[in-house]
Amino acid sequence: MGEFEFIRFLEGENSSFFHKEVIRGIGDDCAVIEKDKDSVILISTELFIEDIHFLREKTSPYKLGIKAVNASLSDIAAMGGVPLYLLSSVSVPKDIGMGYLEVLYKGIKYACSRYKVDIIGGDTSSSINRIAISITVIGKMEKRKVVYRKGARPGDLIYVTGYLGDSAAGLFLLKEEIDAPLDVKKKLIDSHNIPEPDILAGRIASEYEFASAMIDISDGLVADLNHICEQSNVGAILNLEDIPFSKELFSLKDRLSIYELALYGGEDYKLIIIVRPEKRRDFEEIFKKRGILCFKIGEIKKEKGIKISSKEGIKELEIRGYEHF
Amino acid sequence: MGEFEFIRFLEGENSSFFHKEVIRGIGDDCAVIEKDKDSVILISTELFIEDIHFLREKTSPYKLGIKAVNASLSDIAAMGGVPLYLLSSVSVPKDIGMGYLEVLYKGIKYACSRYKVDIIGGDTSSSINRIAISITVIGKMEKRKVVYRKGARPGDLIYVTGYLGDSAAGLFLLKEEIDAPLDVKKKLIDSHNIPEPDILAGRIASEYEFASAMIDISDGLVADLNHICEQSNVGAILNLEDIPFSKELFSLKDRLSIYELALYGGEDYKLIIIVRPEKRRDFEEIFKKRGILCFKIGEIKKEKGIKISSKEGIKELEIRGYEHF
Repeated sequence: MGEFEFIRFLEGENSSFFHKEVIRGIGDDCAVIEKDKDSVILISTELFIEDIHFLREKTSPYKLGIKAVNASLSDIAAMGGVPLYLLSSVSVPKDIGMGYLEVLYKGIKYACSRYKVDIIGGDTSSSINRIAISITVIGKMEKRKVVYRKGARPGDLIYVTGYLGDSAAGLFLLKEEIDAPLDVKKKLIDSHNIPEPDILAGRIASEYEFASAMIDISDGLVADLNHICEQSNVGAILNLEDIPFSKELFSLKDRLSIYELALYGGEDYKLIIIVRPEKRRDFEEIFKKRGILCFKIGEIKKEKGIKISSKEGIKELEIRGYEHF
Repeated sequence: MGEFEFIRFLEGENSSFFHKEVIRGIGDDCAVIEKDKDSVILISTELFIEDIHFLREKTSPYKLGIKAVNASLSDIAAMGGVPLYLLSSVSVPKDIGMGYLEVLYKGIKYACSRYKVDIIGGDTSSSINRIAISITVIGKMEKRKVVYRKGARPGDLIYVTGYLGDSAAGLFLLKEEIDAPLDVKKKLIDSHNIPEPDILAGRIASEYEFASAMIDISDGLVADLNHICEQSNVGAILNLEDIPFSKELFSLKDRLSIYELALYGGEDYKLIIIVRPEKRRDFEEIFKKRGILCFKIGEIKKEKGIKISSKEGIKELEIRGYEHF
């Protein structure tokens, strides 16, 4: 039983709730709780474990704090919500020193303040030898505008809100498995260490009701698009030529399998937005006007599975998630 | 900088919030957020780390799941609230097997269902060699009845809602550092492994407005009473003869320092309830009528510090927290 099956196992048994205000439990980017007639509360929690989600010697505590917050806020973005509050618990080895913890918290605070998110709780404890960071984020939004993973229909268009594969390439550079010019290196490593949550893109997609389904890319484009497809009971076809690359990643195309990174590299934290064809023009226009990137990369299909179309024809993509380290 | 100083450091810088509905951030058992004119949302998060908060080979995954939930719900109890929802994230070593994780989740679910708490989120990931469990709990209550740590006044009476030291004694027995008759052993080990959150006691104390301050005992009686004293800007005096012991712990008085365990042993998850003297009779009567234990163990004083009174006179108690393992 993998993680996805396990979520299904939990989800299955959680289909009926004690409290009727629970609109959505496990299985989407956030839980959705009715607050009042018109609005909902969004909640999500994530755990970051040293040597699984980050490498202590490769990411400064300040950037680690920012990354943990930004990755968590991305879950609010993926529903179309506004982040409000955050709770963080940190467990650190006794020998690590308070200096490290202070700088980590400064990163957490900096990232929160950028999005006007209040830190309302958390605790610290020691651990034996590895750092663990738990982040819970809480947001809000209009009840009828929440965008779930389910909702995609055949014929809908598939967009992503930025370049793909940069974060995974940044990890290769961090681990010094390949080398690159300094500016390229800095840009890609920053994409890995301090990804930005696409809160504004998510808000606009939900407020204007452009999105029929949405998710953020944490496990990788194919794995996360597959979550949408499974929950919407549809399939998808991607166009290889439309996959968007940053000029930095593209410059490394002879050293890295950039398509592999774009399709299966995780932690890009861009959004996949599914848009009904009739909304296409307005969607693209408003995103352009607001200066937010969006690239059409494919289409939702009735037939299950995720395929990719290129000059060489159409082939079925393997569904697998991003392997952290 | 210890944990308490660190909380103060975080708290200090968080005194002003972006969002005016934040009534209380870091520094109490839960954060308190205004939901509407009359009600608030309570939120708390905790991280449980293997070999710091629990020993894998000494606590079954089922009981570990129950303990993590119950300890977390205790934070809602300590404000006087009603628990509603829970999110749990678990990180387990790859070699541990899905069986372990399933049984752990069954414990989590069982504990939640007993208190009609909906599991609304969480995720699972792998770790290198130790289990980490993060639990976030959300509750609700009437805005004007929230009981904080601050609020104790000189002359107020100090109550605890059950016997003290059982959990710490249970840990000694678990680690086989001492031995005891089977029934005593079972009772004390259960107090350690599956402590009950005192939700009903907290509710009654808040609903009837009996409590001027309240906290749950996770760090130990003295350490947690000290939180109340510091936030209320008061001191306290305890009466040694009034410290309540279970008959099981009392039976081990020649083998264990039972007063040390009661004062400094953590994880009892009983509540410390501070009661104005004029409410004493009603408070004791209603708790008795409802069959809930409560023992008066001392009094709030103007003079700072925590003292203990016995036949040998009055002496100042050292303030220190429970050392996990």
